[in-house]
Amino acid sequence: MIETLAVIGVGLIGGSFARALKQAGVVRRVIGIDHDQANLADAVRLGVVDEAATSLADAVARADLIFIAVPVRAIAPVVATVVPYLKPGCVVTDGGSVKEEVVKACESLMPPGTAFVGGHPIAGTEHSGAAASFAELFQRRRCILTPTKATDQAAVKIVQAAWEAAGSRVECMDCRTHDRVFAAVSHLPHMVAYALVHAVDRSAEEEENILAFSAGGFRDFTRIASSDPVMWRDIALMNRTALLDLLDRYTAEFTTLRDRVAAGDGRWLEEYFTTSKRLRDSIIQR
Amino acid sequence: MIETLAVIGVGLIGGSFARALKQAGVVRRVIGIDHDQANLADAVRLGVVDEAATSLADAVARADLIFIAVPVRAIAPVVATVVPYLKPGCVVTDGGSVKEEVVKACESLMPPGTAFVGGHPIAGTEHSGAAASFAELFQRRRCILTPTKATDQAAVKIVQAAWEAAGSRVECMDCRTHDRVFAAVSHLPHMVAYALVHAVDRSAEEEENILAFSAGGFRDFTRIASSDPVMWRDIALMNRTALLDLLDRYTAEFTTLRDRVAAGDGRWLEEYFTTSKRLRDSIIQR
Repeated sequence: MIETLAVIGVGLIGGSFARALKQAGVVRRVIGIDHDQANLADAVRLGVVDEAATSLADAVARADLIFIAVPVRAIAPVVATVVPYLKPGCVVTDGGSVKEEVVKACESLMPPGTAFVGGHPIAGTEHSGAAASFAELFQRRRCILTPTKATDQAAVKIVQAAWEAAGSRVECMDCRTHDRVFAAVSHLPHMVAYALVHAVDRSAEEEENILAFSAGGFRDFTRIASSDPVMWRDIALMNRTALLDLLDRYTAEFTTLRDRVAAGDGRWLEEYFTTSKRLRDSIIQR
Repeated sequence: MIETLAVIGVGLIGGSFARALKQAGVVRRVIGIDHDQANLADAVRLGVVDEAATSLADAVARADLIFIAVPVRAIAPVVATVVPYLKPGCVVTDGGSVKEEVVKACESLMPPGTAFVGGHPIAGTEHSGAAASFAELFQRRRCILTPTKATDQAAVKIVQAAWEAAGSRVECMDCRTHDRVFAAVSHLPHMVAYALVHAVDRSAEEEENILAFSAGGFRDFTRIASSDPVMWRDIALMNRTALLDLLDRYTAEFTTLRDRVAAGDGRWLEEYFTTSKRLRDSIIQR
């Protein structure tokens, strides 16, 4: 049982975490804070949190567990702001999609007797804000924790138990592996979708029928291009090294494909598309 | 009422067209032919067609309407093969995703007293074959017809009525516009997805966790990378001009994005992602 949970950033992820733990009956009181006052008012009105804090200091002073669910570049600055007010024994965790830089910075900030545990719930929708949050978001979804050699094991267990109460399957992974994996399976696909929407829009300026016919396959394909821009700006900046490696791999693949289309190389294209189908099908069956 | 319909290529599209017209009660008899004998046997066994023809000549000799649903590069060769056997007054149409080259070639092959009408139903799944076909595939989906100045108007009306009986909303468009529109909203996204699957797979050779975590967002995003390789090889070859234009626009967008990630340009990235979200949302609301 968590006596007091503080959620910093009561959006889709922070709000859903609060709702899930309340629904599971493992938290007695949830304090929320958000830089967007209208969103925080929504969170109180909808019962996502029990009370709205007036400052970061106020939010964390009574908290036993603190969940930071803000864009990844803001996580370490939030930790830096709250450390003077932390209760002894307090555990701080986050929900950021990039881990190496975040965990390194946060771990170094924590005072003795407190602990930081990096986390990343693999869940989300293309919607944002407390009003979009729901208790079932993490059900049967994975949550990755990225403890380091320095991380207190009791703190890891507390965070793991919270995510399990929210319905998640918890796995541990080192920070660098995490960042490479998600550069490939999530960050690259987002960049690909963002560029695709822009390229199609440029073409639509010349050919209005393009917009009329883009709703079908294009809709699902570009769903992720509607994700929160600030969150994705931060991910692109914070996971730059791993992401650039993937962006360049992708460019190499795409350029090769483009050149084979230009050359009219049907044999190569058929083989390339056949391999894609096999790879994709094998990924999905796992 | 269509006395006899011949379906050449009884796959997802051809099979679903046959099923839809039978279900609507607007066709008396359906003859099917397919180069894959096992697939054709499935089509007969499942009642998709009433009989299996033994040759293209046999398939078309009694037909009033002929629907060609084979990969786009095979459409004109099929028409060239069947023209000696066509009944007077027969109408031939197709379901190809590329129109300009196909329509030009087919139109020039048709004997007097017969007509070719280019068509493209905007429907599909990632599955292939007669067994994947279903009568509702075209319900409330658009079907584009691409008549030219030379196309017989009575023939256009017959094809339009058939698609409407299958549940589609029919629109006419000139061939070149069609090919530019679908290069943007369908062919480019497929190429993007094919390259993405390959890039992620290359990375997975070095980091096995990538496969374990690729099922989530990656699954929906790359669904189209499981589409039929031969069909997509032909589309890439037949719509090469329009597609290359889009591939190059996309490369320009992606390269700019990559360079802004490399430069750590947060302001630019946030604006780019914000615009993507607005564009995508406006596309979806249409």
